[in-house]
Amino acid sequence: MRPFFVCLSCRRIQACMPYLPMHQMKTNFHFTGEDVNLSVLKHRAYNLRWAMVPEGVIPLTAADPDFPCAPQIREAIMRFTDSGYFCYGPPEGYAFFRESVARFFSEKRKVNYSPGCIMAVDSAAAGIFMTCQAYLQSGDEAIVFDPIDFLFRHSIEAVGGKAIPFPVPMDPKGDLDFELLEKLAGPKTRMICVCNPLNPTGKVLNKNELKSLVEFATKHNLLILSDEIWSDIVFEPAVFTSIASLSEESFKRTITITGFSKSYGLAGLRAGAVLTPDEDSFSRIMTASGHQSTVHGCNSLGQVAATAALDECQEWLSAFLSHLSLMRNKAVSELNAMPGISCPAPDGCYLVFPDIRATGLSPAQLQENLLNQAKVAIVPGLPRWFGDKADGHIRICFATSDEILSEALHRMKNHLNTIL
Amino acid sequence: MRPFFVCLSCRRIQACMPYLPMHQMKTNFHFTGEDVNLSVLKHRAYNLRWAMVPEGVIPLTAADPDFPCAPQIREAIMRFTDSGYFCYGPPEGYAFFRESVARFFSEKRKVNYSPGCIMAVDSAAAGIFMTCQAYLQSGDEAIVFDPIDFLFRHSIEAVGGKAIPFPVPMDPKGDLDFELLEKLAGPKTRMICVCNPLNPTGKVLNKNELKSLVEFATKHNLLILSDEIWSDIVFEPAVFTSIASLSEESFKRTITITGFSKSYGLAGLRAGAVLTPDEDSFSRIMTASGHQSTVHGCNSLGQVAATAALDECQEWLSAFLSHLSLMRNKAVSELNAMPGISCPAPDGCYLVFPDIRATGLSPAQLQENLLNQAKVAIVPGLPRWFGDKADGHIRICFATSDEILSEALHRMKNHLNTIL
Repeated sequence: MRPFFVCLSCRRIQACMPYLPMHQMKTNFHFTGEDVNLSVLKHRAYNLRWAMVPEGVIPLTAADPDFPCAPQIREAIMRFTDSGYFCYGPPEGYAFFRESVARFFSEKRKVNYSPGCIMAVDSAAAGIFMTCQAYLQSGDEAIVFDPIDFLFRHSIEAVGGKAIPFPVPMDPKGDLDFELLEKLAGPKTRMICVCNPLNPTGKVLNKNELKSLVEFATKHNLLILSDEIWSDIVFEPAVFTSIASLSEESFKRTITITGFSKSYGLAGLRAGAVLTPDEDSFSRIMTASGHQSTVHGCNSLGQVAATAALDECQEWLSAFLSHLSLMRNKAVSELNAMPGISCPAPDGCYLVFPDIRATGLSPAQLQENLLNQAKVAIVPGLPRWFGDKADGHIRICFATSDEILSEALHRMKNHLNTIL
Repeated sequence: MRPFFVCLSCRRIQACMPYLPMHQMKTNFHFTGEDVNLSVLKHRAYNLRWAMVPEGVIPLTAADPDFPCAPQIREAIMRFTDSGYFCYGPPEGYAFFRESVARFFSEKRKVNYSPGCIMAVDSAAAGIFMTCQAYLQSGDEAIVFDPIDFLFRHSIEAVGGKAIPFPVPMDPKGDLDFELLEKLAGPKTRMICVCNPLNPTGKVLNKNELKSLVEFATKHNLLILSDEIWSDIVFEPAVFTSIASLSEESFKRTITITGFSKSYGLAGLRAGAVLTPDEDSFSRIMTASGHQSTVHGCNSLGQVAATAALDECQEWLSAFLSHLSLMRNKAVSELNAMPGISCPAPDGCYLVFPDIRATGLSPAQLQENLLNQAKVAIVPGLPRWFGDKADGHIRICFATSDEILSEALHRMKNHLNTIL
């Protein structure tokens, strides 16, 4: 006999929502060490994180939070699961998801997308990939920032295109060099890829920079591929602006990509969205997606979770951001106090990307030393992951508790003080 | 204040598994009309089913059951969701999933795959697609049965290959013509695609046929791509055999694909598996998959659901199969009693594929008439969906309750009796 439940509010058996543990109720988002469940993370957190590092090592690696998702997301999944139906969904995504994404962009990003031009996809990465499939031919060129996460270059090259690096400042406060950018455009250039906020440097592009990018794209008749997966993770006084929101011109030139892994900790549920300006571009990307044939698509619970995130978890997200802001300050100040490390403060992303050249070690050497001797895992700034300009840097994710971050930074500091 | 729950067995608040409604407890798998929740289906069942047909129409269309999934699957999803962690999973799939698939194949299919050579994928369709990406070059030929579901041809053509149709009998009891098959192999032939049981005719290949297919593949040095997504849905006395289980030769030549949508009603969770004979073929398909870059992958809850299905739902599956067997008998006998319809009994799949040529109507005409006048939706045997031999046939899915199936067949019979 399995256990079943009675609701303490209404006294009915069976007919209520699944329970919520008290410590995860809405009023109590503290993001403390107690909220981090290491025994679960050690079984579930891959991509260089807890399930992949030796016992005793603290991973500050993949950009994935150490905290569980908001309780509203768990509840939404349980409610949907309760009826037991996981039928074929619509290839373009459920209407409730597309409407929620449209509402969010209208209210929070000041840009009006039609739900009919929004597609649920199997991660932001999939959205970037299928946009490149839809818009690039073999031999076409696309401009990508350097440094930047490898996904743009990977997707461009996978469809036979060429990624043209646009060097950007390592300091998030530094200015883009638009004269240099101008020299990169040629007859084969079809697209400019924007990652805003910028992983790994944490730069948040301001309105003037975005306007100049739109002017550049317009002059050369380029598509703008705007990866906004980090757009919620922005630290005051920096302000995020969706490039599509700037003007009619920017709207019609832009394919916007978003996802739910960074803000809400849902990487494993594999949900993202592609937002297109019109039916033509929507149908072009839909054709490339493999959704119509059922080869690919976004699973139903991923859409349920993402919808709950957008509709019900903005308060949770604010609390998460407040915590992240403290962690950013701690990471930056402690890293700058370590010998050989220089760490500008990011304006966005829960990542720092310090310059480690003064340690005399390569990123790969420092990574190995930290892993073996300090028991801290970090991501080396390898050119194949982040572009040529990333060399001499390491990437550290600070989306964890104060306790874990403090311990990891303490270990790093001791190690560097010992060897330098 | 949200409701929370106390367990009636242990009296503790909060610490138990989510509840199960009594009518869905394990002892009660009846697959009656009461188990079909039309109000949910009308919101969730796409791919030509309840959410896509006009009010009052009964859809016997996409091969997706009208019943909710087994309660053990719901529980497993809720247990996994309870901790709130949806981290990045491993690109090849969670170990628990890969081990469960390996165990199932060893016990039920008599073929020993190493868990390390099994990949979790975003649907059986995705598995077929990435195998074609991994093994076919532009200009390569692959043999596909005719009639057959469009996915093989679609995947072969998407990578620049050519699908060579191998006509097979429309009657599931009919024999394969191996002399004809021999004539189809040429210098560019790289692969033979096997869908067993065969959608749409319901043929279950017997051991002798499978052995002859292996001989043919060996003689011409072909890869065997074996889509076994229907392998649980086989009606006695027919017996399913995995082609990889026949011999060492068949094992090493075969990539086996499976999924969980047909047997367990999980299409919307998008989970499947690719089973490869060795590390080389595993790594070749992994490279093609886009999983390492996170562009694609199988979501964590899909893997959780599939694992519960294989480990805990075999009793549920037997009950489902018993019900399906009754529905098959009903569909076949009632269809054969309708004017102009000739319907052989399928040995596998919950589909019938009757010949409707004697009605004088094309499949598309009959589809339209049935939809508009009889309020029943069926799938026309269009060559683009099922191959050239499918013309003159319609496909009907009978994975529903006796009540719904009887009503739909009654409407069809009345309609045909009126017009013929």
